[in-house]
Amino acid sequence: MGDFIIVNPNKLRDLCTDIFVGMGSPRDEAWVIADCLVDADLRNVQSHGVTRVKMYTDQIDAGGSTAAANMETVSDSPSLALLNANGAVGIVAAYKAMELAIEKARSTGVGVVFVQHSNHFSAAAYYTKMAAEEGMIGFACSNAPCSMAPWGSKTKFLGTNPFSVAIPATETPIVLDMATSVVARGKIILANKKQTTIPEGWAIDVDGNPTTDAAAALAGSVLPFGGHKGSGISMAIDILCGLLTGSGYGTHMNNPFTQAEVPMDTGHCFIAIDVNKIMPAAIFAQSVEAYKAEVKALDKASWAEDIYLPGEIAHAKSEKNEKEGIQLSVAVSEELHALADRLDIPFDITM
Amino acid sequence: MGDFIIVNPNKLRDLCTDIFVGMGSPRDEAWVIADCLVDADLRNVQSHGVTRVKMYTDQIDAGGSTAAANMETVSDSPSLALLNANGAVGIVAAYKAMELAIEKARSTGVGVVFVQHSNHFSAAAYYTKMAAEEGMIGFACSNAPCSMAPWGSKTKFLGTNPFSVAIPATETPIVLDMATSVVARGKIILANKKQTTIPEGWAIDVDGNPTTDAAAALAGSVLPFGGHKGSGISMAIDILCGLLTGSGYGTHMNNPFTQAEVPMDTGHCFIAIDVNKIMPAAIFAQSVEAYKAEVKALDKASWAEDIYLPGEIAHAKSEKNEKEGIQLSVAVSEELHALADRLDIPFDITM
Repeated sequence: MGDFIIVNPNKLRDLCTDIFVGMGSPRDEAWVIADCLVDADLRNVQSHGVTRVKMYTDQIDAGGSTAAANMETVSDSPSLALLNANGAVGIVAAYKAMELAIEKARSTGVGVVFVQHSNHFSAAAYYTKMAAEEGMIGFACSNAPCSMAPWGSKTKFLGTNPFSVAIPATETPIVLDMATSVVARGKIILANKKQTTIPEGWAIDVDGNPTTDAAAALAGSVLPFGGHKGSGISMAIDILCGLLTGSGYGTHMNNPFTQAEVPMDTGHCFIAIDVNKIMPAAIFAQSVEAYKAEVKALDKASWAEDIYLPGEIAHAKSEKNEKEGIQLSVAVSEELHALADRLDIPFDITM
Repeated sequence: MGDFIIVNPNKLRDLCTDIFVGMGSPRDEAWVIADCLVDADLRNVQSHGVTRVKMYTDQIDAGGSTAAANMETVSDSPSLALLNANGAVGIVAAYKAMELAIEKARSTGVGVVFVQHSNHFSAAAYYTKMAAEEGMIGFACSNAPCSMAPWGSKTKFLGTNPFSVAIPATETPIVLDMATSVVARGKIILANKKQTTIPEGWAIDVDGNPTTDAAAALAGSVLPFGGHKGSGISMAIDILCGLLTGSGYGTHMNNPFTQAEVPMDTGHCFIAIDVNKIMPAAIFAQSVEAYKAEVKALDKASWAEDIYLPGEIAHAKSEKNEKEGIQLSVAVSEELHALADRLDIPFDITM
């Protein structure tokens, strides 16, 4: 599993904020990037956490991403907008888009905001949780560089095109967040970084054969979840985020690791639905809380340690890591240390 | 597989229209019900086709469904509405809701319409195709009586909660339509009617053991597609369609076969997004057409006869059946014949 150190979440967030400020981001944007990445680490979704800082800063260095967002409104209707990210860090583009979706939802009941020409936006759940915090239903999805063969093909064409749905509750929201592959490609990237194998059933190699080798899987193709169903969902996301926004799609997108000098040209979609326009948000939140309790009380399958609601494990991990610290791989810590040194930022992320 | 006859789609549609008019539906509503069901049969989704007529008429007879829709607007915002179906035939409620969603989308860019206290709405694709015909992106989902254990549980709680996405193209739209179970429960109902077995992996019996017996599967639990991912999607649909509309959810919904005297109390959600507000719909349709061609031209997996786009097989079947006739089971034909006799309607559905 490689070596780990335990780090202080707040110091990690401050460090990452300072790194992006050092790269040229306004402090508020740098904070959003840092908060989003640390949030993923807190929830034990390390594949989308600060392990991505180096990729983002390399992209800024190479010109594929702008340190300061320079976004434009391409089209704007009362409930629907298309924003041009102009190669902003995807997290900033996504944050601003969801803010706009929430604002539109407050006015008309629903806000749908698409983003074109963007970059990697980390975990989709970060944005849907913004909606849930406002008592709204949140939805987010993005396309991604191709890594997955559509059902019936052996050629990679679809990205792992993730989506998230968040539903507000009295206590913690229900937060669905999934890649449309069997697993997030980020988990295979992390396995490759750690030099560990991956389980069978996650991916095929370039020849279409099953593989447990992370590098072979990255060269080959991740498999869609649920066969043709996951493949179809992934394709719908690619079309909405890619074709409808006028961004890249399928194989026509840039890999941030090998083509850092150009934006990924990914597209995103964000939806907010204002519960208050249908029923008092507090009443709805109570009914969701009761629903959660009802599901938790069902009879467990023999193989299951518990019945977990979507997002429940991640939330529990987040509360635990907030107190006890984040387990950070030494390799990622060294990447951050090198960036801090380069940008003259003091490096201290100890608990 | 049981005995079949080949029937004329137009005569079948006329017959079903007359049956619902005979039951008390206004002719335009009866036509929508008939068109929706025959559309499912044309696309070889027999589980959602005219095999459902008897269930619908039994519900009208017993009082669980109103022959003539008596719908009310519960809340109405520029882009968001909640309609009370008041126990209308689900198809009519869904059709009117998607009409409203399209109207709102034309005005504000997006329309989201929820429906409460409704009944079975047949195949979700029928409504999303309405949006696609207007050059819009269509989305539809519904909850359904419990038949599926959430991931980690052995107790049925979730319905097979289907959803559909339709994306307009120059030629035929891309139409995703799936149950969140491995297969639609309707396919197991049909297998039970035909007294055939079902493949392993579709369902578990009441004790949680895998079964190939259709009756045991109906008593037990259908399995969610894609494990915890499909289970999470199904739960999100249940919460949106059930809790957010103030309708039934989980186990708190009525089975139309055994409780025909009360509405199922299902809820639905329909979304239309007006492509024209983002880019000219004709340009988008062309890009979708090119996308389809690009996917079709990918290298096939060794096991695949072709790479099919979502909805492609159903559309091809529909064009074939339109010309050559619909394969209708003798059992269903006899049900329709009996209804025709009872309502004094001439029975002729021959090619």
